[in-house]
Amino acid sequence: MPRPHDPEALVAALRTGDRGALARALSVVEQGGPPAVDIGRLAWPLGGQAYTVGLTGAPGAGKSTLTNAIVGLARRAGDEIAVVAVDPSSPFTGGAILGDRVRMQDHALDPGVFIRSMASRGHLGGLALATPQAVRVLDAAGFPWVILETVGVGQVEVEVAGAADTTVVVVNPGWGDSIQANKAGLLEIADVFVINKADRPGADEARSDLRTMLELSELGPDDWTPPILLTAATTGEGVAEVWRAVTEHRTWLEDGGGLAVRRQRRLREEIRAIVAHVLQSRAFAMVGAANLDELVDEVEARRLDPYRAAERIIGDD
Amino acid sequence: MPRPHDPEALVAALRTGDRGALARALSVVEQGGPPAVDIGRLAWPLGGQAYTVGLTGAPGAGKSTLTNAIVGLARRAGDEIAVVAVDPSSPFTGGAILGDRVRMQDHALDPGVFIRSMASRGHLGGLALATPQAVRVLDAAGFPWVILETVGVGQVEVEVAGAADTTVVVVNPGWGDSIQANKAGLLEIADVFVINKADRPGADEARSDLRTMLELSELGPDDWTPPILLTAATTGEGVAEVWRAVTEHRTWLEDGGGLAVRRQRRLREEIRAIVAHVLQSRAFAMVGAANLDELVDEVEARRLDPYRAAERIIGDD
Repeated sequence: MPRPHDPEALVAALRTGDRGALARALSVVEQGGPPAVDIGRLAWPLGGQAYTVGLTGAPGAGKSTLTNAIVGLARRAGDEIAVVAVDPSSPFTGGAILGDRVRMQDHALDPGVFIRSMASRGHLGGLALATPQAVRVLDAAGFPWVILETVGVGQVEVEVAGAADTTVVVVNPGWGDSIQANKAGLLEIADVFVINKADRPGADEARSDLRTMLELSELGPDDWTPPILLTAATTGEGVAEVWRAVTEHRTWLEDGGGLAVRRQRRLREEIRAIVAHVLQSRAFAMVGAANLDELVDEVEARRLDPYRAAERIIGDD
Repeated sequence: MPRPHDPEALVAALRTGDRGALARALSVVEQGGPPAVDIGRLAWPLGGQAYTVGLTGAPGAGKSTLTNAIVGLARRAGDEIAVVAVDPSSPFTGGAILGDRVRMQDHALDPGVFIRSMASRGHLGGLALATPQAVRVLDAAGFPWVILETVGVGQVEVEVAGAADTTVVVVNPGWGDSIQANKAGLLEIADVFVINKADRPGADEARSDLRTMLELSELGPDDWTPPILLTAATTGEGVAEVWRAVTEHRTWLEDGGGLAVRRQRRLREEIRAIVAHVLQSRAFAMVGAANLDELVDEVEARRLDPYRAAERIIGDD
């Protein structure tokens, strides 16, 4: 019996298709700290085959229903597929909200499908560090496709979905009304646009709205032009075209060298985030809690400013 | 003539009520870098009088209309007031979306009101670092009230609004439908709940929904119980009660010592963020770009993992 959280045993076990070990490894990654780092490290040389698809959009846009349909298509093509759903978690339930997962019960008994919710609570940047680790665990476990589903409304959440090989942005007819909902952030990361619930009024307006914005964004002749697709995910209408657009974008990235560029950029950003995180932990370990309290008192009394206090912690002052 | 971005001249000028200098100082803060730090430092010993009110909620909840009404109330009480509105910015317009600001034109000609949009684009954490700097510039300029208005849908955005002395969360009837919209995060930071557009159906259900959630959150006898207020901000109905609740919460915090605790916690978090930011910049300055490229190549080839690459940059390996 391996110890439940021994990183080497867990990574070895998830390679054999042990779904319990996979679930435990992801829990360790979600909690962070040294065991999470160990698992990410051990998983890294074993991966490299997974293709990641980000799927994001406003709350209620139909992301989970669409994910569910895409999972079905991948399975019919014979591919295993994993889903990481980043949910706002509730302090009242103590965990992820279950609504979305209920909609994915179609695949609950299929061993070729692995669905995992991750909470977005905790310290700033926690999600940005934990998500790539989760992807590499699923990669090491042999999943050729990993879907990252997030609520596309905040800076971190949009970045997590944007840090995929192909990113699908889901909107609804009438989405222009909620113009403050980080529309700009969503437009920047979209490789494929989906107007879901296209049987409702306003789908054509939403499409011409998106087209206009794409024209204004001055795409070059060598740039990928995000297709704009209409779906009714509850009936499955248009979903096959979404999956086809994802695979076309993948081919375009692979053939043109863009995939390597994207992945390098992502690694660079991840390394930067790790450097910041490690140095911060170290700096705070160097300063005792009592000492930090003293500095905060000095800052509060306006004898010291926050930047000078930070310099004292770092040891420059 | 002072140089337009000379920090000392800018801070001296904003002390004299020079609104042009104030606007330039905020632009410098928004852009970040050493000049932003200099301005924050110079402004820090001059401040300490401003009381900050966070105001957040889903897109379209009526935040700006409510802010507009609150600004009117503060002005009628004879107080100057500043508003920092954190807007998702558009890559297409190159700046903040103007819709919200249009709604605040009531106060465009009042010199006792200062309204400023800040973009939420840029690197992760940029907003979290820039907002407290903007507040201390406005504090140094002598504003006794600073409202921080954000779209309450993402991790960073909710944290920015939550990092105020009093935080007002604005919802609408029927908000329970969009359960994925970081409801949990909003509930955690609320000192005052406002159900805006309360003339629409569902206001009573929204209120009993919020009450139930407050009961489940197990507030202690010494905790503040967030009041739940109904408004129709477009007509001004209920807005005076919101402002009264804000001032009551302020009195409660000031009398019970909670204000100092909150502000200390915020300073502590800010110092942590600065430490991380400074150390990260320094670590990357130490490694040449070419060297980082080499490391990324090694990681991509799976000969090195991202954590080991980070250690090499830091100099541990």
